[in-house]
Amino acid sequence: MSRYEQFHEFRSRLNCRILGSDEARGNGVDGKPNVGATLVTKRFFTLDGQAYQDGALPRKTKELMGLVASMVLRCDDCVAYHIDQCLEIGVSDEELFEVFDVALIVGGSIVIPHLRRGVDFLDSARVARAKGRTPTCPAGGE
Amino acid sequence: MSRYEQFHEFRSRLNCRILGSDEARGNGVDGKPNVGATLVTKRFFTLDGQAYQDGALPRKTKELMGLVASMVLRCDDCVAYHIDQCLEIGVSDEELFEVFDVALIVGGSIVIPHLRRGVDFLDSARVARAKGRTPTCPAGGE
Amino acid sequence: MSRYEQFHEFRSRLNCRILGSDEARGNGVDGKPNVGATLVTKRFFTLDGQAYQDGALPRKTKELMGLVASMVLRCDDCVAYHIDQCLEIGVSDEELFEVFDVALIVGGSIVIPHLRRGVDFLDSARVARAKGRTPTCPAGGE
Amino acid sequence: MSRYEQFHEFRSRLNCRILGSDEARGNGVDGKPNVGATLVTKRFFTLDGQAYQDGALPRKTKELMGLVASMVLRCDDCVAYHIDQCLEIGVSDEELFEVFDVALIVGGSIVIPHLRRGVDFLDSARVARAKGRTPTCPAGGE
Amino acid sequence: MSRYEQFHEFRSRLNCRILGSDEARGNGVDGKPNVGATLVTKRFFTLDGQAYQDGALPRKTKELMGLVASMVLRCDDCVAYHIDQCLEIGVSDEELFEVFDVALIVGGSIVIPHLRRGVDFLDSARVARAKGRTPTCPAGGE
Amino acid sequence: MSRYEQFHEFRSRLNCRILGSDEARGNGVDGKPNVGATLVTKRFFTLDGQAYQDGALPRKTKELMGLVASMVLRCDDCVAYHIDQCLEIGVSDEELFEVFDVALIVGGSIVIPHLRRGVDFLDSARVARAKGRTPTCPAGGE
Repeated sequence: MSRYEQFHEFRSRLNCRILGSDEARGNGVDGKPNVGATLVTKRFFTLDGQAYQDGALPRKTKELMGLVASMVLRCDDCVAYHIDQCLEIGVSDEELFEVFDVALIVGGSIVIPHLRRGVDFLDSARVARAKGRTPTCPAGGE
Repeated sequence: MSRYEQFHEFRSRLNCRILGSDEARGNGVDGKPNVGATLVTKRFFTLDGQAYQDGALPRKTKELMGLVASMVLRCDDCVAYHIDQCLEIGVSDEELFEVFDVALIVGGSIVIPHLRRGVDFLDSARVARAKGRTPTCPAGGE
Repeated sequence: MSRYEQFHEFRSRLNCRILGSDEARGNGVDGKPNVGATLVTKRFFTLDGQAYQDGALPRKTKELMGLVASMVLRCDDCVAYHIDQCLEIGVSDEELFEVFDVALIVGGSIVIPHLRRGVDFLDSARVARAKGRTPTCPAGGE
Repeated sequence: MSRYEQFHEFRSRLNCRILGSDEARGNGVDGKPNVGATLVTKRFFTLDGQAYQDGALPRKTKELMGLVASMVLRCDDCVAYHIDQCLEIGVSDEELFEVFDVALIVGGSIVIPHLRRGVDFLDSARVARAKGRTPTCPAGGE
Repeated sequence: MSRYEQFHEFRSRLNCRILGSDEARGNGVDGKPNVGATLVTKRFFTLDGQAYQDGALPRKTKELMGLVASMVLRCDDCVAYHIDQCLEIGVSDEELFEVFDVALIVGGSIVIPHLRRGVDFLDSARVARAKGRTPTCPAGGE
Repeated sequence: MSRYEQFHEFRSRLNCRILGSDEARGNGVDGKPNVGATLVTKRFFTLDGQAYQDGALPRKTKELMGLVASMVLRCDDCVAYHIDQCLEIGVSDEELFEVFDVALIVGGSIVIPHLRRGVDFLDSARVARAKGRTPTCPAGGE
């Protein structure tokens, strides 16, 4: 599995485990359905989706902001998620590398390893998407 | 002095102290010119300015990214600086409050006190700018 | 004004400015009502309140968790807010100093200045509360 | 090896390497015993253990505080360690998911990938513990 | 009071309040001696002092490391404390500005406001020390 | 491949991908040369190298500062990079463990997992270097 597919497989599986129906969450070692997220967590995931919708600012600007925030906070999976969303809405590589500029200047050299892994994910995502693999993520969360 | 003027006064004075000429840096207790920034620091300040210039992405998007990054990293002065830059280029309050949305969702409730101080600065800046006070910051740094 | 009163005055005023009705938000320099928080931000504030209510864990444990999280993330106003909530529900000083232990061990010496300011706020809050000053914060946010 | 066993294997091996006797630390490429932790680091590990003992607050509350602090600081191994400690003292899944609520609200969506990995570790730990595998960690550190 | 004197006054007063004898901690609103730090916190403060003593590395290198760590973690009071310790042991301004270089490059532009406040404190400390004011801090903590 | 070799392989490959010539960056799925770093990012990498050169402070002190900053910011790859640089210039294990002391005290128990992985990398690097494997990293970045 490519890095792109690994990312989506784990993310989808755990989103089901945390947010899904009794059946989707699976059973625990005691044979009963796993305990999943509370209402607070479920509402947070919903709110997370709403924050990136078109409004006074277009969704594209918001995804770029989500990406830069993920980079300066140095969260690889969040970077991967927002890069994938950016590709989904047609952001170019030239634009992405200018997002990386701002993240690097604001966040410093400590961002560099996350930049490397972000570019590695970007290449993996471009390949997967060219092959028509654009997994629809189950709703919820970065 | 309003919060807006305090911000600019301190920022300008210290930028001179750190980046300025021998004269601008002032003398130390030994009567000699204060030691100021090295070439590395000076170049970093220059690079910081270049990262927000129009390119594949417009300056406006980059300022919004700078603002969201400053909020999730919880740096009040950086938030103030980028809000001021946003006003300079005509960003509306509706747009700013959507930047705050993304910062709050990505960064969590820990961002709230910085949101309060950011809005307080915004109000102070709108008043100062309506009166024609738009201090030209000496080049350099958030 | 004591540190305790300053904290509540600023917090209340800005919560009104951000979350309040047209009237409570006040008018901007253009004479129109200030733009305030979006629905996303308002819902986040509501969710923030819900996360600390009694459930499988009692509210007291959640407030202690909110306090320790605020200390390791080094947010003075969040620390002040949670200390005040802890006093509201009868947490003792002995218990608070054990929360400080965990925060110090997890977060390191970088937490110490926030510990000092937290204890200073605690003393100020005990005095204000003994005098019967226990301002009801307008709903919303740390 | 499951995620649970991998976690404990690496943690135990490195704790020996860092804190252990000459023999336990092993030899370096020069054939001499590896250099290990100083007294300062050893004392810090001891202090780390003491911070979670019963006092004015019970150990359970302190472990929950350790877990929430680890989540908002986004340290996967610290999250795994505190989840395992919570299982050891009988914390329920319903309680754990309310700790996740507080972490998510305080720390924001950047916490989500750590929540996913935390739940994945939780499931792995429940399985291992049901099989009677509850490795006694060598003393020391999160 | 200068920034330098304010820093030391608050630090000394709160160190007494937290770490001091019954008398030094003062009485609370109930007329009883204030509750102070636990043994865990007291031992942590002691350990904090030990970490900067001469060893395989000289104290000077350790103070410079403490300063750079404080800058990238963006803790103004920690920066002030370590700058003051650096002056105590004769670190030059040229050396300090190279510490600032590393902090700026590692930590990014988000460090800049802390750099400004650090240089402002440095100037204040040089003046106070030239006048013979070098307050002996009560033992304990950054 | 050892941890040491994996680290260098990924770092070298991605540095080429990001900073290299058209040929070194490789072609994308569209058959055209991959888009690489902008001038801002390239200049930042250059500046990153300059910050650690001999000056008022020797390179060794700067590498130790880079290491401690990487540890308190909890970036495993940055820790690995600076440990490798330290070995390159002859820093002893006794000195490294005193850097770890300062990082642990400043950054707290949250640093412990990074300490474990740092020591694991150190052992891997000592073995690789004893065998004569000291890969020259392509210029650029932590």
